[in-house]
Amino acid sequence: MTSLDILGIGNAIVDVLARSEDAFLARHGMAKGGMALIGPDDAERIYGDMGPGVESSGGSAANTCAVAAALGAKVGYLGKVADDALGEVFRHDITAAGVTFPTAPLAGGAPTARCLILVTPDGQRTMNTFLGACVTFGEADLDHDAIAAAQVTYLEGYLFDPPAAQAAFRGAARIAHAAGRRVAITLSDPFCVERHRDAFRAFVRDEADILFANEAEICALYQTDNFDAAATIAQSEVGLAALTRSEKGSLILTSGAAHAVAAEPTTVVDTTGAGDAYAAGFLAALTAGRELAECGRWASVAAAEAISHFGARPQADLMALVGKAR
Amino acid sequence: MTSLDILGIGNAIVDVLARSEDAFLARHGMAKGGMALIGPDDAERIYGDMGPGVESSGGSAANTCAVAAALGAKVGYLGKVADDALGEVFRHDITAAGVTFPTAPLAGGAPTARCLILVTPDGQRTMNTFLGACVTFGEADLDHDAIAAAQVTYLEGYLFDPPAAQAAFRGAARIAHAAGRRVAITLSDPFCVERHRDAFRAFVRDEADILFANEAEICALYQTDNFDAAATIAQSEVGLAALTRSEKGSLILTSGAAHAVAAEPTTVVDTTGAGDAYAAGFLAALTAGRELAECGRWASVAAAEAISHFGARPQADLMALVGKAR
Repeated sequence: MTSLDILGIGNAIVDVLARSEDAFLARHGMAKGGMALIGPDDAERIYGDMGPGVESSGGSAANTCAVAAALGAKVGYLGKVADDALGEVFRHDITAAGVTFPTAPLAGGAPTARCLILVTPDGQRTMNTFLGACVTFGEADLDHDAIAAAQVTYLEGYLFDPPAAQAAFRGAARIAHAAGRRVAITLSDPFCVERHRDAFRAFVRDEADILFANEAEICALYQTDNFDAAATIAQSEVGLAALTRSEKGSLILTSGAAHAVAAEPTTVVDTTGAGDAYAAGFLAALTAGRELAECGRWASVAAAEAISHFGARPQADLMALVGKAR
Repeated sequence: MTSLDILGIGNAIVDVLARSEDAFLARHGMAKGGMALIGPDDAERIYGDMGPGVESSGGSAANTCAVAAALGAKVGYLGKVADDALGEVFRHDITAAGVTFPTAPLAGGAPTARCLILVTPDGQRTMNTFLGACVTFGEADLDHDAIAAAQVTYLEGYLFDPPAAQAAFRGAARIAHAAGRRVAITLSDPFCVERHRDAFRAFVRDEADILFANEAEICALYQTDNFDAAATIAQSEVGLAALTRSEKGSLILTSGAAHAVAAEPTTVVDTTGAGDAYAAGFLAALTAGRELAECGRWASVAAAEAISHFGARPQADLMALVGKAR
């Protein structure tokens, strides 16, 4: 295995995006801006009621990997698809983005995961995920060589939901640390944090070297509605934290310092993938040896690009946007 | 069957769109702006070499149906998908667009058709179609009641390629005419016209009441490189013809009159679906009893909307754009 800058591990999902009115969310009892796990029956019911969609490869950590690769990082990804048409689409897209994807597909089981994403007129996205083949991702799918070869192994918080994946998660951290590498985690979603708070808090404190979270997630983790209080705890419990606050920018914390980073101005079309792109920009700069302030700037530029169009994967020339030489 | 304004018949295809450089087309020997039929091996080879894609329901006549429905027309569609995931995507999207889709899926045969579309920096699209389940569409799939119930049955010229479909094509025209209805055809592609010129010319002259064609297609049909000469033949051989000329607008011809229609100004992002949308605007206005000049205006507005974004299905509020009351 040649060396990697970033290895992402997450739920391998194909997104189905459709525009929707707020009334649709209300009618289906959806919490706006959040992610709900759904079974096959709900998936069919919601999909049947949705407007015409556009399909593209998604998955939080996979989006991060695609964006980081577009920023010139050497990237690998682990996640479980089925051996079906959507699984081929996922594999094609992440490979075509320049990301190594060694995980074998699931044969003869559940179909490839899909996420039904409703984009409301304000650009907010509300997600409904049918996990399908993802739930079988486990320790056997950990590619030891890839994890040991990566400067940073990046874990998606959503992986706390499928039971087998939580063990894989901890296994990945063990392998990375044994190889002298760093482990990053993103909290993914405040509802996901609520479902697994104790496990999350222990993991962040004991296993994570780098933490990504937005305001709602970090407040959910530390059970406070005061962002500054949550940030103070994060600063004391993890070596490096990047806390995002939408248009208010982000805060990068180390045990000794805090850097405030401004958000890049942009027009909000669809917030799908904004946090994923932020983490990608940050880690691509960090693993390229940049200063933390520059990591924050790359993160903000990548997040702004993601927000400015429909869908989570990059459409613009990100290397040019951050001013990185080829 | 309740009455329909438009019934479209065509190849039921899911599009896979990716941005590409001109060098990619050259490397794969593709004719820019055209549509080539490919087998499963070529489909795999080209897809494997393409960049990350976005999937959305397509198919020329199906796009026309979706746009016409967005303009308030009552629309039905006949076309063959497989009983697979992409077939479900196709069925969902056309149904969610408000189009009746009674054709049964193909069970246990070839997969749902897909079209690999390369969009070059100039906004032109170059298409590579793997017909899959489409090739089985035949006379048995003709829904007599739907055809008899539709003011206009709209046939996609691409259907001349699959052998079984040509017979279905003629059968549909017979049913429509027996019910006192009109038959429209679009030539679809100059290469498709070259492949089936005699059959096309006979069908246009003997069966079609309404003809749609662009400059390259009408010139290919009548084997001339002089558009005016081709237009004169079209005017003498078909009752109503709408000939499109990209940014030069379009020409609407009846046996007694010619209307020149200006193109709507817009920024070209992706020409995929421009001709399909033009036909949709035209037929939605025509079946709503509008004058021909107004039909041309709706057609131009719908085409401009299609060109202004990535993908063939409408994204804007077309009723508002043409100023139609709800």
